[in-house]
Amino acid sequence: MAARADRLGAVRVEVRVELKPGVVDAEAESIEKSLALLGIPSVRRVTTARIYDLEFAGVDASEAERLAGDAVDRLLANPVIHRVHVRSVSD
Amino acid sequence: MAARADRLGAVRVEVRVELKPGVVDAEAESIEKSLALLGIPSVRRVTTARIYDLEFAGVDASEAERLAGDAVDRLLANPVIHRVHVRSVSD
Repeated sequence: MAARADRLGAVRVEVRVELKPGVVDAEAESIEKSLALLGIPSVRRVTTARIYDLEFAGVDASEAERLAGDAVDRLLANPVIHRVHVRSVSD
Repeated sequence: MAARADRLGAVRVEVRVELKPGVVDAEAESIEKSLALLGIPSVRRVTTARIYDLEFAGVDASEAERLAGDAVDRLLANPVIHRVHVRSVSD
């Protein structure tokens, strides 16, 4: 397994979790208000997202993306409110 | 101002706020443990980041980046623990 991991190297997958359109983003709304109060009123809209950067060992890129999708379904996102983008990242 | 905003269109700046190396990322550690328990042990390391997507109106891209930097300094990040990347995004 160690030899295989060495041969394949590390694979990084970036999971981006956003709120679906229509779901209230309370943090974003708070930032919009605060920026206006701070004198930066040209910000018309703020949206937020959470990034989970997963570093895999011993698997290739397609297997890593599949496992990342599994992690999203079972842990990282709630399909009722979240929209998710999964992509491989090369350093 | 409305005419100027129309002419310049909307400019989006993505602010990515990460924890500096050495700062404990409790959420990432919790995810690493949970993924191992869920039977996805090939994830060697998890890091997290917060994305703030700022949509500006009435300013050009360089001014938007400057204002986003101002927003980072005054609201979005803590220089003691955070590392920040600011970049313009074209749709």
